[in-house]
Amino acid sequence: MFSVDIYKQRRNALKKAVGKGIILFFGNEEVGMNYKDNTYHFRQDSSFLYFFGLDKPNLAAVINIDEDLEILLGNEPTIDDIVWMGTQPSVTEIAAQTGIFKVTGLRELGVLVKKSVASRQEIHYLPPYRSETIIKLSEILSVPFDQVKGGASATLIKGVVAQRSYKSDLEIAEINKAVNISNEMHLAAMRHSAEGVTEKYVAGIVEGLALSAGGNIAYPVIYTVNGQTLHNHPTNNKLKKGQLVLCDSGAETPTHYAGDLTRTFPVNQKFSQLQKQVYQIVLQAEEAAANSLKPGIRFLDVHLIACEKLVEGLKDLGLMKGDVKEAVSRGAHTLFFQCGLGHMMGLDVHDMEDLGEQYVGYSEGMIKSKEFGLKSLRLGRELESGFVLTVEPGLYFIPELMDMWQAEGKLKDFINYDKLSAFRDFGGARVEENFLITDNGYQLLGEPLIKSVVDIEGLSRF
Amino acid sequence: MFSVDIYKQRRNALKKAVGKGIILFFGNEEVGMNYKDNTYHFRQDSSFLYFFGLDKPNLAAVINIDEDLEILLGNEPTIDDIVWMGTQPSVTEIAAQTGIFKVTGLRELGVLVKKSVASRQEIHYLPPYRSETIIKLSEILSVPFDQVKGGASATLIKGVVAQRSYKSDLEIAEINKAVNISNEMHLAAMRHSAEGVTEKYVAGIVEGLALSAGGNIAYPVIYTVNGQTLHNHPTNNKLKKGQLVLCDSGAETPTHYAGDLTRTFPVNQKFSQLQKQVYQIVLQAEEAAANSLKPGIRFLDVHLIACEKLVEGLKDLGLMKGDVKEAVSRGAHTLFFQCGLGHMMGLDVHDMEDLGEQYVGYSEGMIKSKEFGLKSLRLGRELESGFVLTVEPGLYFIPELMDMWQAEGKLKDFINYDKLSAFRDFGGARVEENFLITDNGYQLLGEPLIKSVVDIEGLSRF
Repeated sequence: MFSVDIYKQRRNALKKAVGKGIILFFGNEEVGMNYKDNTYHFRQDSSFLYFFGLDKPNLAAVINIDEDLEILLGNEPTIDDIVWMGTQPSVTEIAAQTGIFKVTGLRELGVLVKKSVASRQEIHYLPPYRSETIIKLSEILSVPFDQVKGGASATLIKGVVAQRSYKSDLEIAEINKAVNISNEMHLAAMRHSAEGVTEKYVAGIVEGLALSAGGNIAYPVIYTVNGQTLHNHPTNNKLKKGQLVLCDSGAETPTHYAGDLTRTFPVNQKFSQLQKQVYQIVLQAEEAAANSLKPGIRFLDVHLIACEKLVEGLKDLGLMKGDVKEAVSRGAHTLFFQCGLGHMMGLDVHDMEDLGEQYVGYSEGMIKSKEFGLKSLRLGRELESGFVLTVEPGLYFIPELMDMWQAEGKLKDFINYDKLSAFRDFGGARVEENFLITDNGYQLLGEPLIKSVVDIEGLSRF
Repeated sequence: MFSVDIYKQRRNALKKAVGKGIILFFGNEEVGMNYKDNTYHFRQDSSFLYFFGLDKPNLAAVINIDEDLEILLGNEPTIDDIVWMGTQPSVTEIAAQTGIFKVTGLRELGVLVKKSVASRQEIHYLPPYRSETIIKLSEILSVPFDQVKGGASATLIKGVVAQRSYKSDLEIAEINKAVNISNEMHLAAMRHSAEGVTEKYVAGIVEGLALSAGGNIAYPVIYTVNGQTLHNHPTNNKLKKGQLVLCDSGAETPTHYAGDLTRTFPVNQKFSQLQKQVYQIVLQAEEAAANSLKPGIRFLDVHLIACEKLVEGLKDLGLMKGDVKEAVSRGAHTLFFQCGLGHMMGLDVHDMEDLGEQYVGYSEGMIKSKEFGLKSLRLGRELESGFVLTVEPGLYFIPELMDMWQAEGKLKDFINYDKLSAFRDFGGARVEENFLITDNGYQLLGEPLIKSVVDIEGLSRF
């Protein structure tokens, strides 16, 4: 964790932003995989990490703004805990690490909240995403499970987003570390991609490197010859010569900051002519988008710049036709690029996604579109210095979607449907890098990782 | 999954065992790590796997015994699902894989249960361990969430345990695969244990190998120089020459059968004289316990055989004194061996732990002890042919516990408290292997993995 003053400052700023009432923060619990005590790796809630820095399960915190009081809630370790889990600090010791000097047991949460209800204080909490938190809120507030999420505080969400959106130098240093570990994961992925090994074999090496670096994966490793499937799990299918692999993976540091990179490369290193053409269209779109990053530009417009570059390339390839800008404004490119260009990144790989995309990626004057394509653009708002984000255009050839559009004759002035058949088995390609928005423009995060055809084909294997 | 007939047979046997009423089975859902869509790897519920073989999230099943009707509940994939996750089978196709021909949406579960309630059918379900399942049961049955677990059906639990306790040849073949992958994980752990690397570095390699083999870890990797802490997470501390490492890790196959092995070995391969002495006591206890395995013996008695061997060794070492059998019957050994000798293993590494240890590890005439030491013995019952279990004695030098006992002068006729100080920093040692109970005795599962001092010290590094 960072120094205690940082967490105190963050909480003070939050109290000022929220104004009055009490704020409830829930740390995460452990989750059993196939029975209670066989747990997944523990992942603390990111806002809990941001405001308290405490990376342990079974904690909660109450900030009573009206009384200027901070309380950490947790249960004291027993001798059984020490036998099974080693020496454990007391809740008082844990609280002191984050500058809190009042502690109580977890059961007291209900009592504290009842007092606030009785004295008509506003009760603020963030939207819960873990069922354990939903159960606790349902019990404490006496509301049905399905009404808990709707009761989350917009004021609190905005206060949290107003801080977490701007990354400090310390946070940027952590993100740089995360990206550099991610670089090593991708170099290993390229080097181990050979005929006859399985997707899971390589994905296991990639995930192992994230763990060996002391943290974890920031999200499930995507390593697939079916790059057209946007969220995919590696399979036990063997790689074949000539296949194109899409690897989207990133590390999380021990302090839980994320990196998020994608590379697309051929099994056995040699691109076919068509793979090279498609890949280079994507790469040019990525570079054009990156080069336009600066404070003041809307990320929606950066997205559209990338879309235009993709359409230009697809026209050269013979798959699209007509006016580029019109094609994009009509959404014709979404047959091949169905999703958004990128997202905020920080303590979460999709930073603050639990708080709601409208609050994080858009603004009061800018509502997220519901159109196919744009509805998947997680970030649209005007960029500001201190934002950290990803740029990740791609081209995805999804047979089911191509068939659906072709049957409807959808946007046929822009799409050469007769040329699609050659691409049914192509798969997909994506390139992704992470950037900091600076006062004057942008900065690539992490050391540059190879991305040109020449560099990928020339990478020394071991 | 296995052939469809196997699942049909298992369900038919279960219907016969339960007799009447309806049985509700809940598959697991995905769980978000730090927001809803950033999920941990999916792990299906083991009983759902056993009776249906379907390894996908968001499924449920109803078996109406009285009407001899089986229904699979799931929601149909949308075009968005196909774009994001690739071609998806319909619920009807999924159900057919397990021989079920009636399907409906998940929302119908409440309706089905209400009908059963109205017609006064008994409703059977297994004890839930995931909060999502608790919420669903609380809603469907209209009971407070903290009363859901208490409503689980003992009849159903017994029916499930009566089948899952006896492993078929197909299951044993899977467990052999799991153990053999686990062997590779342990060899890598030994080879990479060197001065200057971190515990997490090696643990990452170990976990990566489980993933690369196509499945996953069966439980969180324990790789620690603090072997006295029974459940421990690897740290970013660097290994030092002379330290003793305890590695407890096992793979889960793609079909979700577990392996579970422990080895204890020195950083840089060379045991000290004291490490060698302690390790060999543990090894002798493990071998004595294994050699006594056979149908008809209570595992509690196998546990006590191991305890006696440990006490004999500790007497030779000067840490204990007095009559061996009396020392064990008084629990004096629990200062150094605080836990149980082993547990059932199968689809869960602690097989069926979610169903309750009394049902799985004990019997109607044999109640689990509440004494320190024996209360942690997960398996006590008479062994039968077809059981798969672990044997894992250890010696753990826990300073807090030694201080506590010494201050009380506890069982001082058996413990040489003046000799303990030399062991405060020792750590702990454990050896664990997996066995099948056969008609005549036992069989080691997997290929033998090195465990003697000579073999560990002589292991070629790369």
